[in-house]
Amino acid sequence: MHVLALDIGGTKIAAAVLDDDNVILRKWRVPSSQDPADIDRIIARMYRRAAEEFADIEAIGLSVCGNVPLGRRSIEFAPNIAAWTNYPLSDNVEALIGGACPVVVENDANCAGWGEYVKGAGRGSRNMVLLTVGTGLGGAIIINGELYRGSFGMAGEIGHTPMVPDGDTCGCGLRGCTERYISGNALERFTRSAVRRWPDKSGLLMELCDGDLTKLTGERIAQALEQGDELAHYGFGKIGEWLGRAMAATTAVLDPDLYVIGGGVVAVGDALLEPARYNYRRFLEAGAYRGLARIVPAEAGQDAGLIGAADLARR
Amino acid sequence: MHVLALDIGGTKIAAAVLDDDNVILRKWRVPSSQDPADIDRIIARMYRRAAEEFADIEAIGLSVCGNVPLGRRSIEFAPNIAAWTNYPLSDNVEALIGGACPVVVENDANCAGWGEYVKGAGRGSRNMVLLTVGTGLGGAIIINGELYRGSFGMAGEIGHTPMVPDGDTCGCGLRGCTERYISGNALERFTRSAVRRWPDKSGLLMELCDGDLTKLTGERIAQALEQGDELAHYGFGKIGEWLGRAMAATTAVLDPDLYVIGGGVVAVGDALLEPARYNYRRFLEAGAYRGLARIVPAEAGQDAGLIGAADLARR
Amino acid sequence: MHVLALDIGGTKIAAAVLDDDNVILRKWRVPSSQDPADIDRIIARMYRRAAEEFADIEAIGLSVCGNVPLGRRSIEFAPNIAAWTNYPLSDNVEALIGGACPVVVENDANCAGWGEYVKGAGRGSRNMVLLTVGTGLGGAIIINGELYRGSFGMAGEIGHTPMVPDGDTCGCGLRGCTERYISGNALERFTRSAVRRWPDKSGLLMELCDGDLTKLTGERIAQALEQGDELAHYGFGKIGEWLGRAMAATTAVLDPDLYVIGGGVVAVGDALLEPARYNYRRFLEAGAYRGLARIVPAEAGQDAGLIGAADLARR
Amino acid sequence: MHVLALDIGGTKIAAAVLDDDNVILRKWRVPSSQDPADIDRIIARMYRRAAEEFADIEAIGLSVCGNVPLGRRSIEFAPNIAAWTNYPLSDNVEALIGGACPVVVENDANCAGWGEYVKGAGRGSRNMVLLTVGTGLGGAIIINGELYRGSFGMAGEIGHTPMVPDGDTCGCGLRGCTERYISGNALERFTRSAVRRWPDKSGLLMELCDGDLTKLTGERIAQALEQGDELAHYGFGKIGEWLGRAMAATTAVLDPDLYVIGGGVVAVGDALLEPARYNYRRFLEAGAYRGLARIVPAEAGQDAGLIGAADLARR
Repeated sequence: MHVLALDIGGTKIAAAVLDDDNVILRKWRVPSSQDPADIDRIIARMYRRAAEEFADIEAIGLSVCGNVPLGRRSIEFAPNIAAWTNYPLSDNVEALIGGACPVVVENDANCAGWGEYVKGAGRGSRNMVLLTVGTGLGGAIIINGELYRGSFGMAGEIGHTPMVPDGDTCGCGLRGCTERYISGNALERFTRSAVRRWPDKSGLLMELCDGDLTKLTGERIAQALEQGDELAHYGFGKIGEWLGRAMAATTAVLDPDLYVIGGGVVAVGDALLEPARYNYRRFLEAGAYRGLARIVPAEAGQDAGLIGAADLARR
Repeated sequence: MHVLALDIGGTKIAAAVLDDDNVILRKWRVPSSQDPADIDRIIARMYRRAAEEFADIEAIGLSVCGNVPLGRRSIEFAPNIAAWTNYPLSDNVEALIGGACPVVVENDANCAGWGEYVKGAGRGSRNMVLLTVGTGLGGAIIINGELYRGSFGMAGEIGHTPMVPDGDTCGCGLRGCTERYISGNALERFTRSAVRRWPDKSGLLMELCDGDLTKLTGERIAQALEQGDELAHYGFGKIGEWLGRAMAATTAVLDPDLYVIGGGVVAVGDALLEPARYNYRRFLEAGAYRGLARIVPAEAGQDAGLIGAADLARR
Repeated sequence: MHVLALDIGGTKIAAAVLDDDNVILRKWRVPSSQDPADIDRIIARMYRRAAEEFADIEAIGLSVCGNVPLGRRSIEFAPNIAAWTNYPLSDNVEALIGGACPVVVENDANCAGWGEYVKGAGRGSRNMVLLTVGTGLGGAIIINGELYRGSFGMAGEIGHTPMVPDGDTCGCGLRGCTERYISGNALERFTRSAVRRWPDKSGLLMELCDGDLTKLTGERIAQALEQGDELAHYGFGKIGEWLGRAMAATTAVLDPDLYVIGGGVVAVGDALLEPARYNYRRFLEAGAYRGLARIVPAEAGQDAGLIGAADLARR
Repeated sequence: MHVLALDIGGTKIAAAVLDDDNVILRKWRVPSSQDPADIDRIIARMYRRAAEEFADIEAIGLSVCGNVPLGRRSIEFAPNIAAWTNYPLSDNVEALIGGACPVVVENDANCAGWGEYVKGAGRGSRNMVLLTVGTGLGGAIIINGELYRGSFGMAGEIGHTPMVPDGDTCGCGLRGCTERYISGNALERFTRSAVRRWPDKSGLLMELCDGDLTKLTGERIAQALEQGDELAHYGFGKIGEWLGRAMAATTAVLDPDLYVIGGGVVAVGDALLEPARYNYRRFLEAGAYRGLARIVPAEAGQDAGLIGAADLARR
């Protein structure tokens, strides 16, 4: 039996057909839309395309950036697609495909976390937390080998754990949310501050962004890091420090055995993970006298979301 | 069948025999000891006393203030009984009673949380968090109707979640731990600050502590509150505010449907719970658009620990 | 004798001729420029226009938004006019007017502070601090009846005192600067957060900004406040609270007898000043046992800068 | 002409006779008292002893740990001598010595600051701040070459500037005061935390305090530092970091040209001053584009208070 999985973003939609072992057999990518009805139709169209080749598609799994209530059939709200508010996504798509198979909706961080758990760095763990450092900070929680959704489908929103009272203003309206200190956005802000403080050391970074600090993207900072740039090192070190603090805080509640760190920035390796591990220990209660979680980079990469969506749809 | 439950503190030990419905049939209290071997013998003696009356004691459940590894048979360390370090409590007691029945050790906050869940304010909840405001702040987590211990037995240490970077120094060596802002100790500190700031309003509090601020205990502040004292109201309001913040932070991770608030201070009711509920909402991401946890006072009271220890020992 | 004073902003330049008693005899307003050479010429032109009517102009005083070194003749940098970097403003203007009179440059917050001191709410004070709540937070310090500039011309930058470690990111590259919590900008952010949290109470504010929160300006929040709006009250209350905290912090260093609060927001009166006074007391060391500074609104209004620039040029 | 200066502590009183060049000609030390009348008599007795040898004593300068109102003749309150509340110290002593010469009272931090200014590391500075890192954190401010007392005699209380909202509880009743992060006390707390976190590196420190962390004094930490101990380095580094932050905050207000750092800890030199200088720059607005204050250790040492008291009494 096969599953069609779709990762629906604001600008593009990735699709894949996976077999029972969560192996990806075919993969497409098409442009997305801001119009929910359009998205419904794109999904249906991709289903028909997949069904032509794979006769036995048993379910469609949809990974969406948004809040998914427990029934896993609708979207309560989505930060990037305004009209996805209390939207009956499963009903609509099932109608378009004539009820050919069930359509299961799941939050994208949850899909990625589950993907890492079943086929990535999380295998063999019992209680695992995924943290994805992207534009923001996504989180997913596995407890006793199952995805944990909470009582209202909102568990694992670790990016919006308050870390600093009266701290940096978050897009969500709160202050001091974790994702203001651990994200690509935060990396840029920490590095820009470093440039302002130590302009004499900013030569390479300024060159890479053509003298315009607003163009100082995470990619360029990573590029500078590769060349041994001190300020780039500072920037990654700061988000690493906060990542360590956030894991220490999460451990006080969940005491997991594994943290899997995903997102593009994790490619820089130790420049991020060393300060993360050091500060995890530093800010952990009784850190010298307890079992410590392992902290490892994600492995399933960009496919994690598709794998997770497929596997969750099957259950 | 019956279970013997013991709640072992630094100064006294409470014991009870409970039936299959977790009804307490008999209850004793004896002095405790700082000597672990003494404690072993006290437990054995109480078992024999209970066994005289109740022939069918199937298990002994021990509630202890300390870190209990997953096997539930030993104590890794205990803040109040120094010699309880890597101590094989179950082995020792089982030897003393000739292996008459199994001895199960559990952390006291976990026992209280489970007691509330099976026989108190937590009944019917799915994902519940207990917060006990005492000298410190204890926590216990119920997930999908089961006690959640984490991967190393340390889950639910919500009293040591870092709330304020560089905040108040905690006995654990960290700074800004939740329990520095939500505890009887914190209540006293907030209220003392209020007295220093507004001495003209401190008449009643100063009278209740005979003019000596070091004697300003939580009991006296609660007494002043009953008489409408403004500064007492401020003190309870502050720990209530932080309780709300801590629940908002915990919700970002766990998204439970219920918080049960235990400990002596909860007797003051709304002076604590109103600011707690207000600030829970205030510091919750998307608080206006999500399911909200109920926040209720504990019901099982001082028996919660005994009930929980008994029920957990039975499983 | 007369003085010509100019207040040079990024979009407009205000000019005035004042007599020896700092009475404004004539006032103009002309568009500004981003080109420093243009600004030089505008100043010279205005001097000639003033000199036609007033024969005895003894000095020109320039109030500028920027860092002015101790000599009071140049601009080190200016946040709004990029080319004003190490710019010899006095030299240039004196050359254009043939050395007819001396040209004195001063920071705009300092001018406003001095204006309030000689002709506004600061009269009779000995040690005074002006705080101007505008887009950012400006500050000026009077010590023993004289403007205090510090050793490098940068004293009184109270808007960039760090208030919150790891706090809100400031345009200056630091985190937690006072002006991130006390400014028109901060008022908008606090109020927007309130709208997100309590959408059921946001009717009036949403109406005033046509349902678009990005249009929620300080003016509209002040308008809502007049109609008794609860969320507008919350917003002003929050910047008032932080204003109180900032004054307490400043008092620990300077122990002044007077704070004068300027800027448009002060027009709302007690909605701002009451929480400011309350929190000033609350966060002041030994607040119950020391002399307290008075906290009053500015009086000289928009003319304060011109009056201050004129009077300082005369000295 | 000569001046008698006394430095009055809670346990001992140091006395000295100084000439017009502030050279110390004679120095004694006697036990102190908790009884203000006793202290009055001790001062009078020391005056008579000094007057026997030096005929022309023109004034007595008293350095006291307490709040001294502007008249410089009384003590409003003193943290270490409870009965020194609104105490007319000058009146009392002048009566006992028959009005032989004027008696001038001054705060001890102000005396030390002035001593450094006229005869220590502060010579030649224009605007200077003294920070004395002792049990707490003392401060004194020199502006335009004169001691600055503020409008109520409380200026320079930099130890009670709030640095961390909701931070560490201070003896003064506030939270997050600077002296909770920069003091001998803070050094001990930071180092103890390090020992708890990294017990494997704590060998030397544990040895120096006989395995009892409560005996981990600043002296012992300094001793460990000399032997290259990593955790001692961490401890001094942390108070150095906060010292840098505090100077950055003070600079935003005062923009001085010099910070003089006093107190026993400064003897360790760069282990303290390097992180202080680094973080001063790091947390300073526009730090790369402004005049920077020099940061130097105190020079006049324990005599600074006597020198300052004498010189201030002469004025």
